[in-house]
Amino acid sequence: MRKNFGVKPYTYPQPVFMIASYGEDGTPDVMNAAWGGISENNELTMCLSAGHKTVKNILAKKAFTVSMADAAHVTACDYVGIVSGNKVPDKFAKAGFHAEKSQFVDAPLIAELPIAVECRLISYDERTCRMVGEIVNVSVDESVLDEEGRVDVAKAAPITFDPFNNAYIKLGEKVGNAFSDGAALK
Amino acid sequence: MRKNFGVKPYTYPQPVFMIASYGEDGTPDVMNAAWGGISENNELTMCLSAGHKTVKNILAKKAFTVSMADAAHVTACDYVGIVSGNKVPDKFAKAGFHAEKSQFVDAPLIAELPIAVECRLISYDERTCRMVGEIVNVSVDESVLDEEGRVDVAKAAPITFDPFNNAYIKLGEKVGNAFSDGAALK
Repeated sequence: MRKNFGVKPYTYPQPVFMIASYGEDGTPDVMNAAWGGISENNELTMCLSAGHKTVKNILAKKAFTVSMADAAHVTACDYVGIVSGNKVPDKFAKAGFHAEKSQFVDAPLIAELPIAVECRLISYDERTCRMVGEIVNVSVDESVLDEEGRVDVAKAAPITFDPFNNAYIKLGEKVGNAFSDGAALK
Repeated sequence: MRKNFGVKPYTYPQPVFMIASYGEDGTPDVMNAAWGGISENNELTMCLSAGHKTVKNILAKKAFTVSMADAAHVTACDYVGIVSGNKVPDKFAKAGFHAEKSQFVDAPLIAELPIAVECRLISYDERTCRMVGEIVNVSVDESVLDEEGRVDVAKAAPITFDPFNNAYIKLGEKVGNAFSDGAALK
C-alpha cells in the first residue's frame, strides 16, 4: 500500500547550498537553499525569491559561489537559512564563516566549506524565481581529497536536506558505480 | 590550499531520478537523470535532452512520475541510465521493474521504488532542455514509513549521484534539524 502525501516539494536528495555573494559595500553574505542543482554541463540553476539580500547582491555583482554545506558546520549552515541578510547584515561573520575572494568571480568563497562552485550570473527571472549561473570553476580544499586527488566523500561529509522530516542528513556509504553496474542487466 | 577542477557539473548531493512515462502504445519507459530538483512548492524541473524516448512520451502524454532510486535497486537504476528506450523498448521490464498506473496522472509508478512524485507536464523547452512538471501528488510506500507515518530514511535508503567519482552514495545518518539548530547562533 502507498500513502499519498498530496502536493508537496518532497524529493530525495535535496541539496543544502550555501550561496555566497558580496554586497555593494563588499560585505560578504550567504544564504541557504535547497531548490536548485546542475542544469547543464556548465550551468547551475536555483530558485530564489527576489526579496533575498543575496539576490540583490548577485544582480549587482553578476557573480556568486555555491558551497556545499557539510556535517562539521550544520549549525552555521542552518543559521544562515533562518536569519535574513536584510536584517542581519553581518550574518556571514556571525555564522563563524570567513570569506576568501574567489580568483574567478566577484564573490566570496567560504573558507570553512571545502567544496564550492564559482559562477557568473547568466540570468534571473523574478517571476519564476529562476537564477541561472555559468559555472566557471569548481574549487575543493585539499583536506577532503584522497591520495589520487579525488573528493573523499567521507572526509567532505556533504549534507542534504530531508523535506519529509525537516532534517539534515549526511551522505553515507558508496553503494554502486554509475554508468557501470547496470551493464550486468544488458 | 584549494584545488581547481575547472568547469564541471559537480555538486553534492545530486539526485538519481527515475523518470517514468508511458509510450503511445502504453509501454512503460524509465530513464535516469541527475540534473533536476524542486523549483517551486508544487513544481519539479529537470534538464532532459530532446532525443530521449522519455521526452517524446512525456510530450505526448503530458505526464510523468519521478521515483527516487534506492540502494536495493542500484543495478536496475543504473541500467536504465545506460540503455536507451529508443533502442530497447522493454527496458522498464528488463530492469525488473513493474508498472502501476498512477491514480493522478497518465504515467506509471514503479512498484519496486517506494518514493515517487507524480507530475503533470507544465512546459518543455528543447533549446534549454528544461522540463517543468506540476507536482500533483507525492506517493510513498508504507514499507518505508515509521510509526508516525513519516519517511524513515534508513528504510527508504535513497541514493545520490556523486559526479566527482561516478558513484552512487546512499543517504546516511541525520546530523541536524533544519530551521532549528541554527537558532543557537542568534
